[in-house]
Amino acid sequence: MNTTGIVSRMPLPGPLPSSMQLNEQGRLRHLLTIEGLPRALITEILDTAESFAAMNEQAVKKVPLLRGKTVVNLFFEASTRTRTTFELAAKRLSADVLNINISTSATVKGESLLDTLRNIEAMYVDMFVVRHEASGAAHFIARHVAPHIAVLNAGDGRHAHPTQALLDMFTIRRHKGDFTKLRVAIVGDILHSRVARSQIHALNILNTGEVRVIAPKSLLPACVETLGVHVFHDIREGLKDVDVVIMLRLQRERMEAGLLPSEHEFFQLYGLTEERLALATPDCIVMHPGPANRGVEIDSRVADGPHSVILEQVSYGIAVRMAVMGMIMGGASGGGANA
Amino acid sequence: MNTTGIVSRMPLPGPLPSSMQLNEQGRLRHLLTIEGLPRALITEILDTAESFAAMNEQAVKKVPLLRGKTVVNLFFEASTRTRTTFELAAKRLSADVLNINISTSATVKGESLLDTLRNIEAMYVDMFVVRHEASGAAHFIARHVAPHIAVLNAGDGRHAHPTQALLDMFTIRRHKGDFTKLRVAIVGDILHSRVARSQIHALNILNTGEVRVIAPKSLLPACVETLGVHVFHDIREGLKDVDVVIMLRLQRERMEAGLLPSEHEFFQLYGLTEERLALATPDCIVMHPGPANRGVEIDSRVADGPHSVILEQVSYGIAVRMAVMGMIMGGASGGGANA
Amino acid sequence: MNTTGIVSRMPLPGPLPSSMQLNEQGRLRHLLTIEGLPRALITEILDTAESFAAMNEQAVKKVPLLRGKTVVNLFFEASTRTRTTFELAAKRLSADVLNINISTSATVKGESLLDTLRNIEAMYVDMFVVRHEASGAAHFIARHVAPHIAVLNAGDGRHAHPTQALLDMFTIRRHKGDFTKLRVAIVGDILHSRVARSQIHALNILNTGEVRVIAPKSLLPACVETLGVHVFHDIREGLKDVDVVIMLRLQRERMEAGLLPSEHEFFQLYGLTEERLALATPDCIVMHPGPANRGVEIDSRVADGPHSVILEQVSYGIAVRMAVMGMIMGGASGGGANA
Repeated sequence: MNTTGIVSRMPLPGPLPSSMQLNEQGRLRHLLTIEGLPRALITEILDTAESFAAMNEQAVKKVPLLRGKTVVNLFFEASTRTRTTFELAAKRLSADVLNINISTSATVKGESLLDTLRNIEAMYVDMFVVRHEASGAAHFIARHVAPHIAVLNAGDGRHAHPTQALLDMFTIRRHKGDFTKLRVAIVGDILHSRVARSQIHALNILNTGEVRVIAPKSLLPACVETLGVHVFHDIREGLKDVDVVIMLRLQRERMEAGLLPSEHEFFQLYGLTEERLALATPDCIVMHPGPANRGVEIDSRVADGPHSVILEQVSYGIAVRMAVMGMIMGGASGGGANA
Repeated sequence: MNTTGIVSRMPLPGPLPSSMQLNEQGRLRHLLTIEGLPRALITEILDTAESFAAMNEQAVKKVPLLRGKTVVNLFFEASTRTRTTFELAAKRLSADVLNINISTSATVKGESLLDTLRNIEAMYVDMFVVRHEASGAAHFIARHVAPHIAVLNAGDGRHAHPTQALLDMFTIRRHKGDFTKLRVAIVGDILHSRVARSQIHALNILNTGEVRVIAPKSLLPACVETLGVHVFHDIREGLKDVDVVIMLRLQRERMEAGLLPSEHEFFQLYGLTEERLALATPDCIVMHPGPANRGVEIDSRVADGPHSVILEQVSYGIAVRMAVMGMIMGGASGGGANA
Repeated sequence: MNTTGIVSRMPLPGPLPSSMQLNEQGRLRHLLTIEGLPRALITEILDTAESFAAMNEQAVKKVPLLRGKTVVNLFFEASTRTRTTFELAAKRLSADVLNINISTSATVKGESLLDTLRNIEAMYVDMFVVRHEASGAAHFIARHVAPHIAVLNAGDGRHAHPTQALLDMFTIRRHKGDFTKLRVAIVGDILHSRVARSQIHALNILNTGEVRVIAPKSLLPACVETLGVHVFHDIREGLKDVDVVIMLRLQRERMEAGLLPSEHEFFQLYGLTEERLALATPDCIVMHPGPANRGVEIDSRVADGPHSVILEQVSYGIAVRMAVMGMIMGGASGGGANA
């Protein structure tokens, strides 16, 4: 019995009772998915992140909020980039951090996922930051951890990547303020994207004026409209008058699976170029969760151009992760950095 | 000349002069083996661990006892699990921790073990936590390190795993108090187990009423009785009226080596089931150093059942390692957590 | 496009404007190469390192100078040894440290070097410690990083290894004091050695009496004399009356490339033996950047003998790296450890 086995036999998580993520006082207990989070809570996370964003620009980028707490990065899927952002966020809150790459450790000895979890939680740790290739893995873990341990989903299969969506909302809010008047377009491989799924939920919870998805049929989930989005197959139509363009990363594996003809052809049809971007509003911002495939989903002139806020997203990602960790473990809110 | 070569040519360590582990004042200098440790010292370690166990249950699990000290995890044999417990223990004492996996680093360039040691000790480090597949490796290193550096054996070949035995003693003491009235049975592959060897020494030093080993002849060392144990080949006989059952992990490699017929047959003969456990005392505790092979040496119902204290062992392992590190490097004792 | 590609197409760096490493006040901004550094600045680094060397011998080896700063070890070429020294130096200055091994992370997803840099710098980090197999990589990165980030070259191809040269100067100064009266010989593979190149620059800037290189023609750069050294092909002639012998590590790859006949023959011609060392001054010191190939470039009796200061070099390496990091990020100088 290996850890992948245990998880891949689980059903895909449907909508969850909010009690899965919130405690009896309505405070954040785990962060597994954006779906079902109250708007006030998302706003509180973004407000708390503001104070950490300010702190990150000071000379001493460290607060003692989580001193004596232990955060475990439990990565079943390698991602130095993502792991690094959580590691930095935890260290700047003064927590101790353990990085555990499961594929190369416990499972070698045939230990099951649950035994591994039980073991690490017995070491009096406070939070698991979980990345796993199987959808629902973070929920599975949250359902089984000890009561004093929190779970932060750092990406599970095609399902959810809530901190990415929150940092995207933070970025949009910083540039655009009010969501109710915005047109936001998400472009590319919606079907396989946990990022897109979480963004759509967040945008809708925040009452965004219009959420569009732009993709070929082969890269859209069935009944995508039920998520509350307008579907466009033509990028020129879809980009018209939008205030925010969110490009998704194209996974090369999709080509091999026959869902797409070639990178070149994808760029011809859905790549973001300066010319196409001109169809959006003049002060439109361009976002990407990174790492971008230049020349595949986005032209370098756009990725590095005046509308791009891609690197701001990375910066805000630290602040947003600090906010979530601080709220769950340290009771941070609003003026979290001053706690 | 590679590091394995140097060590495998060493003789197996026999009984050591206690001066190898203790300084002139009788204080702990290295921890290499349980054999030969004074009873009072073991008791002092367990007492010191009590205060750290209490601390680990508080909100801020950190003391400044080893601030400015550097602990180096020197692992010649990969073990994320074990390394993690030492890393956490050191961090909660505020030490700086370096993880060095030797098989993937210096030896690539052909540096000998001694050169590697000399190099790392020249960086003003304070402790080596050593795991090595060769019996005697930790002694070899202790014999050669600079006078200001301590060595903590985290498992050497079939020889010793002293912190595991200490955390086991801590667990037994918490549940049973006085050792002199206890019957303790160790079950499984005694022959290849550094854990069993250290446990037997610890139990005898603490004057345990009766220490039993239960195993087939092929998995017992020659003259095992000279270690001060009663030998049983029938698990039903051996478990009768015991207060503590310690299961060992069965290494699959033993099957390949022809020492055992099959996992299935081993479970039939020596696996711990609810029915067999009923032969022990009603409040018997079940221990395992982990990770357990469920269905091989232990039934899941027992591993997860009311008698199992397996996860407590993990928790206490942090406290016991903090105690040993604190006593060696920081002068901790008794009320160590308050130092 | 992979990161190696980007860098290997760059021209080898020529002499740089000193403004590349110094800011407008003449303070250290990056440390990329020894070439062109003012003598006063090198002396200031060595003076600052003195206070850290003293601190490293105290019980609490830690100062809060860089608390709240983030140092990123960006290693494109694996080197546990070197990485460890920078990691320890940063931790003893209380900085947070991230270890990123590029070959095993971001480039797997095809991200270019510049995108990787932009990403990590967006996380509000303060310093990149860079090791790369391509000459000029650290300069390339320094030219492209954000203004608030410093670059410390931890070895780039055959080009430079400035902190190694500085720790060597520190070691020589501690033993010999005044450079102007010294004869220093560097022996071995000068051609491929970034260490030798940086040492020669440092020795010349510090006005060393005479700098000699001893090597076969096949292991000397063309026009090596223009670097300000005297060339010897015969080791007996070259060692005559020298005060300092610096042995270089022989890379086995050179044999395969046909530049050298065999390790044995190299030792016959250029290996440092006790007998040859007797040609130097009676209180000559022997240095080696490590790890030494015993029996190839140096006899064990010399490496472990009374003239050897090889392990002191390692110790001083921590102090020198603390000094450089402290001066660049924390404004340390002179009494850095007390800041």
